[in-house]
Amino acid sequence: MSFSSLQTKLKAGVMSIALAVTTFSSLAAHPNLVITEDDVVKMRGALDNKGFFSERYLSLKAQVDQEIAFPIVVPVPKDGGGGYTHERHKKNYQLMYRAGIIYQLSQEQKYADYVRDMLLEYATLYPSLDVHPKRKVKSQNPGKLFWQSLNEAMWLVYTIQAYDLIHDALTDQQSATIEKQLLRPVALFLSEGQPTTFNKVHNHGTWATAGVGMAGYVMNEPEWVEKALYDLDKSGEGGFLKQLDMLFSPQGYYNEGPYYQRFALLPFVTFAQAIAHNEPERKIAEHRDGVLLKAIDTTIQLSYNGLFFPINDAIKSKGIDTIELVHGVTVAYSLTNDTGYLDIAKQQGQIILSGDGLKVAQALDKGLATPYTFKSVAFGDGSDGKEGALVIMRSQLDGDQALLFKPAAQGLGHGHFDKLTWQFYDKGEEIVSDYGAARFLNVEAKFGGRYLPENNSYAKQTVAHNTVVVDETSHFNGDVEVGNKNAPTLNFFETSEYGTVSSGEISTVYKGVELERTLALVNLKELNSTVALDLFSVAADKSHQLDLPLHYKGQLIDTNFKLKANTKQLSALGDKNGYQHLWLKATAKPEQGLARVSWLNDNGRFYTLTSLVKGDEAFLFTQLGADDPNFNLRNEHGFIRRVTDKKQHQFISVLEPHGEYNPSKEYTLVAESRVTNLIHSQQGELVFVELEIADKHYLIAINKAELASKKSFKYQNKSYSLNGRLGVYLINNI
Amino acid sequence: MSFSSLQTKLKAGVMSIALAVTTFSSLAAHPNLVITEDDVVKMRGALDNKGFFSERYLSLKAQVDQEIAFPIVVPVPKDGGGGYTHERHKKNYQLMYRAGIIYQLSQEQKYADYVRDMLLEYATLYPSLDVHPKRKVKSQNPGKLFWQSLNEAMWLVYTIQAYDLIHDALTDQQSATIEKQLLRPVALFLSEGQPTTFNKVHNHGTWATAGVGMAGYVMNEPEWVEKALYDLDKSGEGGFLKQLDMLFSPQGYYNEGPYYQRFALLPFVTFAQAIAHNEPERKIAEHRDGVLLKAIDTTIQLSYNGLFFPINDAIKSKGIDTIELVHGVTVAYSLTNDTGYLDIAKQQGQIILSGDGLKVAQALDKGLATPYTFKSVAFGDGSDGKEGALVIMRSQLDGDQALLFKPAAQGLGHGHFDKLTWQFYDKGEEIVSDYGAARFLNVEAKFGGRYLPENNSYAKQTVAHNTVVVDETSHFNGDVEVGNKNAPTLNFFETSEYGTVSSGEISTVYKGVELERTLALVNLKELNSTVALDLFSVAADKSHQLDLPLHYKGQLIDTNFKLKANTKQLSALGDKNGYQHLWLKATAKPEQGLARVSWLNDNGRFYTLTSLVKGDEAFLFTQLGADDPNFNLRNEHGFIRRVTDKKQHQFISVLEPHGEYNPSKEYTLVAESRVTNLIHSQQGELVFVELEIADKHYLIAINKAELASKKSFKYQNKSYSLNGRLGVYLINNI
Repeated sequence: MSFSSLQTKLKAGVMSIALAVTTFSSLAAHPNLVITEDDVVKMRGALDNKGFFSERYLSLKAQVDQEIAFPIVVPVPKDGGGGYTHERHKKNYQLMYRAGIIYQLSQEQKYADYVRDMLLEYATLYPSLDVHPKRKVKSQNPGKLFWQSLNEAMWLVYTIQAYDLIHDALTDQQSATIEKQLLRPVALFLSEGQPTTFNKVHNHGTWATAGVGMAGYVMNEPEWVEKALYDLDKSGEGGFLKQLDMLFSPQGYYNEGPYYQRFALLPFVTFAQAIAHNEPERKIAEHRDGVLLKAIDTTIQLSYNGLFFPINDAIKSKGIDTIELVHGVTVAYSLTNDTGYLDIAKQQGQIILSGDGLKVAQALDKGLATPYTFKSVAFGDGSDGKEGALVIMRSQLDGDQALLFKPAAQGLGHGHFDKLTWQFYDKGEEIVSDYGAARFLNVEAKFGGRYLPENNSYAKQTVAHNTVVVDETSHFNGDVEVGNKNAPTLNFFETSEYGTVSSGEISTVYKGVELERTLALVNLKELNSTVALDLFSVAADKSHQLDLPLHYKGQLIDTNFKLKANTKQLSALGDKNGYQHLWLKATAKPEQGLARVSWLNDNGRFYTLTSLVKGDEAFLFTQLGADDPNFNLRNEHGFIRRVTDKKQHQFISVLEPHGEYNPSKEYTLVAESRVTNLIHSQQGELVFVELEIADKHYLIAINKAELASKKSFKYQNKSYSLNGRLGVYLINNI
Repeated sequence: MSFSSLQTKLKAGVMSIALAVTTFSSLAAHPNLVITEDDVVKMRGALDNKGFFSERYLSLKAQVDQEIAFPIVVPVPKDGGGGYTHERHKKNYQLMYRAGIIYQLSQEQKYADYVRDMLLEYATLYPSLDVHPKRKVKSQNPGKLFWQSLNEAMWLVYTIQAYDLIHDALTDQQSATIEKQLLRPVALFLSEGQPTTFNKVHNHGTWATAGVGMAGYVMNEPEWVEKALYDLDKSGEGGFLKQLDMLFSPQGYYNEGPYYQRFALLPFVTFAQAIAHNEPERKIAEHRDGVLLKAIDTTIQLSYNGLFFPINDAIKSKGIDTIELVHGVTVAYSLTNDTGYLDIAKQQGQIILSGDGLKVAQALDKGLATPYTFKSVAFGDGSDGKEGALVIMRSQLDGDQALLFKPAAQGLGHGHFDKLTWQFYDKGEEIVSDYGAARFLNVEAKFGGRYLPENNSYAKQTVAHNTVVVDETSHFNGDVEVGNKNAPTLNFFETSEYGTVSSGEISTVYKGVELERTLALVNLKELNSTVALDLFSVAADKSHQLDLPLHYKGQLIDTNFKLKANTKQLSALGDKNGYQHLWLKATAKPEQGLARVSWLNDNGRFYTLTSLVKGDEAFLFTQLGADDPNFNLRNEHGFIRRVTDKKQHQFISVLEPHGEYNPSKEYTLVAESRVTNLIHSQQGELVFVELEIADKHYLIAINKAELASKKSFKYQNKSYSLNGRLGVYLINNI
């Protein structure tokens, strides 16, 4: 059974609603969490038919067979994250969960026996354990099996499902032992035993409430479910529903960004399914206007070429094929029957062995997938959606382009100090890039696989991003608490035939400094081309040094101004706030006019940033890697536009994808920028950019008024009409 | 018709052999170069059937339609390579050739008319031309349409085929004009007009002889063919056959390496087909034991994951899908019916519109392709195959690995000074890499698209490679003439169940210094693993500084010795011979024992080089990019093992691929090297390496005797028997 079938039943009035329950009507039924008895019947029926489902079943079965051939190992907890006992306990819960599924599908006793024996070993071990020896000294949430209770909660989320799956194969005495010595103590430890974490509106809290709530269903403890949903004191101040209300924006955007969004998704999706199956009357899928489904969909939207946009602490190879999102997409398809989700499921290439997974597999077998639509959208940030936004602009006019603009909130402890930063993607690759997190996940030699020291000293710092740094100091002076309290404002966002435009501002990152940025991904239909326009205004009450870095991916090809390169010796650009990690490779001070920097990306295309300068911007070319004694950083490239002693400044530029480098077929097309002129002006609330490119003369108009009603205006004695935020006019062919 | 069908006819004795011809029997037939009248009939017959051939036809026709919609432009020659008139004339000959084919297949007059009109424009222009204004002043081979006659010869190779294809659509007067004012003068200019180039045993000569010879067939000038085949004076000292004899080794290896091999291939293959079709009695396909087919096959063998091994001046993105090799593979399949070539054709994804191309297309339509077999092989270098060798070792035991070892000859002007260098590939990626050529082909901003100055100052220098540099001076002191005269010796090569081993030596790169290197790609069956063994011996008559660089692709993960990193300032490692381009990032001097350097490649695998050191080797970690004011170099990484003041030294190491980094699925396996011990010793001509790895204790024995007869030996009181060069013995599990 699934959300959607439950919704149907609800509509038909089949089930009665009883809000105050003391025991569950479904008490006798096992399994009944993500997978129900009904599901099992259907899934068994599908095993003999060739298709994605039976294929996945056979491969998982083979994998489980291989693993259960080894003796059960339940070691006394000793190691921290990445260490042997840590990894072993992680492996164990996954193995129990998988073996439980294979038991239900194959009905072969040996799988149930394996899970039973492991559970009994845990039941022997657990009562003897104190908190974990490797716990952090001052941490409020140590585990017993693991160094932190987050892992313990994950253990419970999987293990309670495994137990549910093999429950009916156990004797009463075995059940009693496992529940009494293991599952109940773990559930109590993770709830009453750590109220701060359990009640916390944070993904760590979600894992705990999901585990404890599902344990409540399985072991007939409705009170646990109530507490999981509404806080230990049932006030609603904490708990799963509060987490659903607070951690996602109304559009389903998760404050920490997509990397943690997909991580947080799994306990939400899992527990929600268990709630739907056990207490459909709670209408969990409809909670907050279906925010959970929105969260799943938003996670997909937050990707480019299969990978998540790497904002905040994000490891860049994470993408839509992560198991958390496979679960999410499975549920999303089941809820909506939207065949676009099948497109994503196909790309994920993984089938979940559940009722919903069966539905996806059968739809894929029938070839029902249709292309998933990626949209230009501004995801309001914060629980009310009003703490700025994460903006995505897309265009398919010339390649597959995405521009990410981040007038978004800090995003808690994993947030980076990069208000109003941007990233640009084209033809499958990063062009204007973000470093992401400095971390080699689980690689012991790299700082134990944890976030590297360089994550704080570089990756989180403002200079590691593509936004203005004042006086070589990071936003909010690098203080996460202050950052969390002060979000930017999204001034506007609009998408139309002309492209997409958005503007954001913030005046709290530096005292007495206002930052305002307008970005547009502009379609030049006559040229079948897209350019990105970047207008960054800084206004301060006293003079400052202003730096605007641009981190580019590729090989520098050319500049139209003279570089003074450091060819014999390199020094670091600064001594703190990330600057100490940047080697200064060359400097330049272009004359008034257009300053061009061109590079060639691995995708075989050229990119030129053309900046309109007045002779006051210095260009500093950098390479990452200074102050890096352990070779922890990737040696990436950038250039910083710098003005000194300024109260006001506008950084004006246009990014232009052009041409093709094809050494394999031995041709090179349009290696030089086609932009020949750029003029910027303002008439009240209207901003104008004249762009001469490839022998065409364009006028681009942006309406920055508070309300963008239809406007008529004159420009160089010609009349124009602007309906909305963005207008693109071909003045003439040159 | 094709080589193979001709061979059949020959065997059946259908055709008579006449060595001294004055006119050709096939005179009346057009077309009759690569494409024959018979071919055309068959090709037309295939157009209505759905399949690869008709698909390619339709797409080429659409392309030609688009291009011939524009007016014909035949500009007065003005620009050098990459410039407008240069590119336009290149485009013109390709367009005429394609339009000619579409004319034959579609039988639509407009295509013939287009080619005719362009040829007539050329016929008007050509008589007015002197040598090209952009010719190199001291060059012996200027063109008229192009700055160098190489391009003029390429123009003729394509244009003569285009003319042949539309010949029968011309009036006698039109033919007379085109031949008299254009084709004859061009052919004479390229032969009698530049005897040095025409007679030269060099790929420039091949293009000239191919163009002139084919012109001879088309315009009934048997003397031209004779001269093309046997030198202007018909001595056989120069000409196409001499080129076939001298430019390839007996195994079909081309002295300059695969990058230029595929370039040189096209005129060979094209002219050979024209010869076979016009004068089958010359048995050109059988010449020199079928060297041309061997050359095609060798070009394929010289690739990894679709790309050519980048030795010498090579642009790294060139691979098996280049048009030259598409022609080659088409002919190879037609000659042999070996369905392995269809595998390559499938990867190339391009169909040639010719008789042979039709055969390939139809075979692909039928799904006849079988996997092409890549082999471990030593390609003897030099025209006699005795000037050293280019060695390729492959293993599929654990991934898809290739080790390239280069005890090869200099390879003329495009050769690099890298005797005995090596490269290593695994899981689709470069692991131990070669810089290739420093060049951005056709990118005007990068030194006009030509070889960059850094090609000489870095890419060709020895330190840019993975071989020993003595006293910071390149091999042969960077003198290409000396290099061409002194090839290394291939001591042995053997491939067996144990893996592949090879040894080479040279004593002429430095005065009084002998370099000898033995490399082995060793299969450790019990571990399902492969390791690469590297034993490099240097023996000199006086003391020197010896450097052995290793250029690795990936992120440095760990060393088991302390690094002294330069974190605040970087300086160049040296001031000449490539060293001026290397920033010194860190130094170390590991103690006696095993010195490990581990890195992580983009393929998600870890690689560790474990070196057996005596405390006398310094490790210098470098990054490319010093003395590079125009950002022309890629900033790649390496480390140099250095000993100073040594007459003798052995660099001993083992490269071990291990583990997996999978941040997407959040696991990391075996991030640390499994090698725990390495012992090296020698008993007469037997070299022993004991290797303890992953709790297994191996003995690896290599027989370096001149003749490797079967040997029995004792090692640590146990008896062993070695049959051949390489033995791998599992001593015990630890």
